[in-house]
Amino acid sequence: MGVGKERDGAGRERPTTFLSPSAEFPPLSAQDIEALRRLGDQWRAEEPVRALPVDPELRPSRPGAAHARGANEEFRPDQPGELTATPAAEQSDTFLGRLAVRARRVLLGPPLSSASMLRERMRKLIALPILSSDLLSSVAYGPEAMLTILVLAGSAALGLSLPIAGALVVLMISVGISYRQTVRAYPHGAGSYLVASDSIGPRAGLTAAAGLILDYVLTVSVSVAAGIAAITSALPALAPLSVPLSLAAIAALLSGNLRGIRAAGNIFAAPTYLFLIAIGGLILVGLAQAGARGFTVTPTPPVPATEALGVLLIARAFASGATSMTGIEAVSNAVPALRPTEWRNARTVLTWMVTLLVLLFAGLMFLIHLNGLVPRADETLLSQLAHRTFPHGPWYAIVQAATAMVLLLAANTAYNDLPRLLYFMARDDYVPRRFLHVGERLALSNGLVALSVAAAVILTAFGGRTQALIPLFAVGVFLAFTLSQVGMVNHWRRHREPGWRRRAAINALGAVLSAIVLVTAAITKFTAGAWVIVIAVPVLVLVCLRIRRHYDQVRQAVSLRPAPAPTQLPPENRSEPDMTQEFLPQHIRHLLVVPVARFDKTTLRALAYVVSLGQPSLAVHVSPEDQEADRLRDEWTAWGDHIRLETVASPHREILEPLAQYIAQLHDRSPDITLTVVIPEVVVDHPWQKILHTQIEHRLRKALRRLPRVVITSMPIHLSEAPPQTAR
Amino acid sequence: MGVGKERDGAGRERPTTFLSPSAEFPPLSAQDIEALRRLGDQWRAEEPVRALPVDPELRPSRPGAAHARGANEEFRPDQPGELTATPAAEQSDTFLGRLAVRARRVLLGPPLSSASMLRERMRKLIALPILSSDLLSSVAYGPEAMLTILVLAGSAALGLSLPIAGALVVLMISVGISYRQTVRAYPHGAGSYLVASDSIGPRAGLTAAAGLILDYVLTVSVSVAAGIAAITSALPALAPLSVPLSLAAIAALLSGNLRGIRAAGNIFAAPTYLFLIAIGGLILVGLAQAGARGFTVTPTPPVPATEALGVLLIARAFASGATSMTGIEAVSNAVPALRPTEWRNARTVLTWMVTLLVLLFAGLMFLIHLNGLVPRADETLLSQLAHRTFPHGPWYAIVQAATAMVLLLAANTAYNDLPRLLYFMARDDYVPRRFLHVGERLALSNGLVALSVAAAVILTAFGGRTQALIPLFAVGVFLAFTLSQVGMVNHWRRHREPGWRRRAAINALGAVLSAIVLVTAAITKFTAGAWVIVIAVPVLVLVCLRIRRHYDQVRQAVSLRPAPAPTQLPPENRSEPDMTQEFLPQHIRHLLVVPVARFDKTTLRALAYVVSLGQPSLAVHVSPEDQEADRLRDEWTAWGDHIRLETVASPHREILEPLAQYIAQLHDRSPDITLTVVIPEVVVDHPWQKILHTQIEHRLRKALRRLPRVVITSMPIHLSEAPPQTAR
Repeated sequence: MGVGKERDGAGRERPTTFLSPSAEFPPLSAQDIEALRRLGDQWRAEEPVRALPVDPELRPSRPGAAHARGANEEFRPDQPGELTATPAAEQSDTFLGRLAVRARRVLLGPPLSSASMLRERMRKLIALPILSSDLLSSVAYGPEAMLTILVLAGSAALGLSLPIAGALVVLMISVGISYRQTVRAYPHGAGSYLVASDSIGPRAGLTAAAGLILDYVLTVSVSVAAGIAAITSALPALAPLSVPLSLAAIAALLSGNLRGIRAAGNIFAAPTYLFLIAIGGLILVGLAQAGARGFTVTPTPPVPATEALGVLLIARAFASGATSMTGIEAVSNAVPALRPTEWRNARTVLTWMVTLLVLLFAGLMFLIHLNGLVPRADETLLSQLAHRTFPHGPWYAIVQAATAMVLLLAANTAYNDLPRLLYFMARDDYVPRRFLHVGERLALSNGLVALSVAAAVILTAFGGRTQALIPLFAVGVFLAFTLSQVGMVNHWRRHREPGWRRRAAINALGAVLSAIVLVTAAITKFTAGAWVIVIAVPVLVLVCLRIRRHYDQVRQAVSLRPAPAPTQLPPENRSEPDMTQEFLPQHIRHLLVVPVARFDKTTLRALAYVVSLGQPSLAVHVSPEDQEADRLRDEWTAWGDHIRLETVASPHREILEPLAQYIAQLHDRSPDITLTVVIPEVVVDHPWQKILHTQIEHRLRKALRRLPRVVITSMPIHLSEAPPQTAR
Repeated sequence: MGVGKERDGAGRERPTTFLSPSAEFPPLSAQDIEALRRLGDQWRAEEPVRALPVDPELRPSRPGAAHARGANEEFRPDQPGELTATPAAEQSDTFLGRLAVRARRVLLGPPLSSASMLRERMRKLIALPILSSDLLSSVAYGPEAMLTILVLAGSAALGLSLPIAGALVVLMISVGISYRQTVRAYPHGAGSYLVASDSIGPRAGLTAAAGLILDYVLTVSVSVAAGIAAITSALPALAPLSVPLSLAAIAALLSGNLRGIRAAGNIFAAPTYLFLIAIGGLILVGLAQAGARGFTVTPTPPVPATEALGVLLIARAFASGATSMTGIEAVSNAVPALRPTEWRNARTVLTWMVTLLVLLFAGLMFLIHLNGLVPRADETLLSQLAHRTFPHGPWYAIVQAATAMVLLLAANTAYNDLPRLLYFMARDDYVPRRFLHVGERLALSNGLVALSVAAAVILTAFGGRTQALIPLFAVGVFLAFTLSQVGMVNHWRRHREPGWRRRAAINALGAVLSAIVLVTAAITKFTAGAWVIVIAVPVLVLVCLRIRRHYDQVRQAVSLRPAPAPTQLPPENRSEPDMTQEFLPQHIRHLLVVPVARFDKTTLRALAYVVSLGQPSLAVHVSPEDQEADRLRDEWTAWGDHIRLETVASPHREILEPLAQYIAQLHDRSPDITLTVVIPEVVVDHPWQKILHTQIEHRLRKALRRLPRVVITSMPIHLSEAPPQTAR
């Protein structure tokens, strides 16, 4: 598909390319290049120094002669001016750094080069289980959630289960078709965030994204906790370890996904297929048995009604049943992770997923109805059905094990989708830009780590008992569904392509049904915890907007284009100094300042350094006593008084503040001069030795960083440089 | 007295001046100045740039015209090239910094200038209570400690109390005279550390110092806990708060002492005088009552013997009674804190102290004997005596209250002495040099803080129950006494001044008696806790030697003198490069390197900066993708290609390591070139914004610091520099 251009909500131009390793380094716009060209034309250097004292291409000094440290072992020359780093160049120099690299290699495998990005995409048969484990696992609890509400009105109300299931199937198909349309319309990534941002506005996009972020984090905590609970109920001895086990499961998911999409696909695909086979077999065998009985309906055991059957109850049952379709959105953000042609493959996978969902959901609902099953506190409906269908043999156990596994793996869908959502948001500057970083295995490692940390924190905070979080589901997801489909309606109305009315109608139906689920879930589950989402979503949106404001500020601060037209500014702000002079060498005037504590090698080296640069230089000494200043002045004279020395007596013996203030004053008097403060710094060999030094250099650097246009130069001097010690 | 010169144990020349604010900046030796002069003679600059673009004396630009930010408000010109910082220059620029300064002013009062150092000295009537509170408070528990041992052999053994007390008086007088001699011989500070270092050797000095350091820290923990225990036993409701109350007492002692010697003297002198009056009154009234009874001895109540009376028991009683004289050493380190003539005043104060000690100790022992008192678990001997002497009236309560107060104040002696001991040790590089810093109230603030922290940690660790630490006393102190007096014997033998034999004999007697106490205490209290001291003293000595080795290494690394003669080195190490070339501007060859991430203001500013310095320059870009590198190269061409650009493709998308390795390789190829890496850095306004930036600059600076002769320049660019934002 190549790289397209689109305008985002804020009117900035941005490339809507696929996941790219260079997203961290966005290219300049045409205006920026124009500004650059203008600045470059004005560039004058005293005399262009082109000869470098060292070969920047690191070629062997004599042909054939290997350099002492092995020339070009770390860097391979490509073309003139271009080198390629070899793995040796990624080695750290420190022991701990090397250990970390070694550990990464063992855990994650060798790094993958950017060029193999395409090869790392998913094929459809891998994408299906990876992207659908969340969706398909939902049928393990969706029907039960619906019937648990209906049965409150007594067993008679259970007759309504088939009509409601029918409505849900309509919703599923409608949302499915809606997403098919979306994938086609947004072939570079069709997530609710992208669609709502583009078609409604950035705030709508952020709202959808906030809902999804919360939902994904909750999915991981809840499904991991549920999977571990299944294990500990089989092996009660492990029960006290449920939190550590859950954290280990999160760590396993994290490292599996850090290994990259392909590796993760190979690890995590099998359980989903097993689940599909198990439930499919259950449904087929169940239908065959029912057919043998002539599809007679077993009457349900009588259950007393505790609530009246009303519209509200039916709406609640509908909303609860709708949890069966959480996870349907997984494909939308994952479009760029599929092999080309991405949108075509995504549509195919989506169709398969929705078909499987409808078949499983409808089949289970029908069998539950035929068998007259009612929800029980001590056994899940799926377990009842499996017991009824497979009274003997290992099949019951297989169904249960596959269900537990797929519940655990539902988390994996979040691992697949959230990092990509964060990547898209980071491209728009709404979350930290480090989510753009493509890790050494081509995974979006920072997003994976962030998701794991958030889920682990929630899991630990709830002590592994995350059932309380289940009511929080659905609200976030259906918020995203609704916004995405409203966005699509807008999209069709705006573009008015042939057949737009039909498409808009499908999306509008999906939007209305999703909105019903959203509102019902938010209201009926408000006190049970949905209020958290109602608060957290706007908070997250505000945080994102705040982050965006910061990045906008940074962009403006570093932009090459001149500041916005001063007419918009109040008159007192118009007297901006001409900023371009900083960017032209001929306009820069220097003053180099060396803070001198005492006369030693470090000082002398700094003095020689500044003088060798041939710029005006000044030495400053802050002294706690007059005698001390006189002593230094005498030493200065003995040395030859090669640089102007200014002493500042500090009667109260403070060194740092008077020094920083003196430099600030120099700057204040001539703000157009570039002050460079050259600070000699002793670098110790061991961290404990740091407490033996006052580290005034570090504090001075911190104090000076606040001053604009003051450049800070550290001259490290190493203890290990010293000649070997003689015995004392 | 002026400034003398002496050689310390390691043979270095050092000034044995009094406490000096410029001890942090030691002057150069004659050899150093000679080396400096030689280097200065070789100094050649291309063309000496003397004209500075800004007036370093910060004179008003137009006469009479005040500068925008108030010229010379912060700095007052003295002579040409000399400024004096006014209090305004000590203000911090940040809100928190200003708040800290404000808090210090309220707590500690205005800062004192170095010139008022002499005025801050103690006069004798203040020095007496300040330096003797530890010593005099010891008589509150010393006699009891002795009798508690004696009574183990039954009441008959109590008859030995007077002879043992006599021996202790001999010890007291002997140690007192010994210290009088020491103060005269070492008029600049006569502490055990100084004396033992000078007359025996540095390890002996460190051993004495280690003993004293441990003892001082224990003194503070124990005496504060004892004082607070006296308060909580009077007001039991406060008992659960004993640890917070103790910490508050330490904080009060700390802030009182941080206010400076004079202020602390005014605060802490009164309670000691009150104690003197109370105990003196008790003794006088008791003697008068006994005289009225014709000095008849009341028989002691019969106590059964649990141990046989032997030499060991007598030695233990002697050692326990010797705790009455802990604190006698306080004057020795404090000599420089007295008004001139320091040693004369110190001797006078010492004589007063020892006289008072002997009077109080002998008086109490005599009265206890006359009244036939025996130690009881439920009431202290002093309390029994006060009850017997003052059966009615408020006097009993006054004696008890004064005792509690002086016990609490014994800690104050440690506050007076330990920072000074650390100062002397820091001057010899055995402890961190920050203990040389004279605070803004002319107190040795870092030593005060260190003592408080150590005591607070011990107090908290023991939950305020520090009685367990009492056996640890005495060992440290008598270790110091013994070493100090052995040192004095050496001193006399070396100098052989008139009358040296008599003086040496006095010190030898003191040394023998002190050694007896030391050995007895160490052996008999070994299992009760003295083993801690036996382990801690050598550990402390080793730590001090390790610190000294580090500072020696630093000194050698920064020394102006050439490295030691290479004949002592193995041949393969002899090919040292000529180090002087770093110190002569004409020999320095530059290469300026700018790491470029993307083309923006920060980059352009760094490029203009390096080119304006007129030195060979190189830009390096590490790129995660070939396309990205090509894009940057196109932008570079558009700009005008003013600097050589080298791109490094990093196929695995690591940025930091290849960049650091590339610079390391440049350095490796031409180690004689001074590489300056210019790193643009965005400075954010709020700390939370840091997480929005990768901070690769910070990590790069850390990685580059390891490379010798690589200079690191930070070019901060401030967000607040950006023009105000227009509404979006």
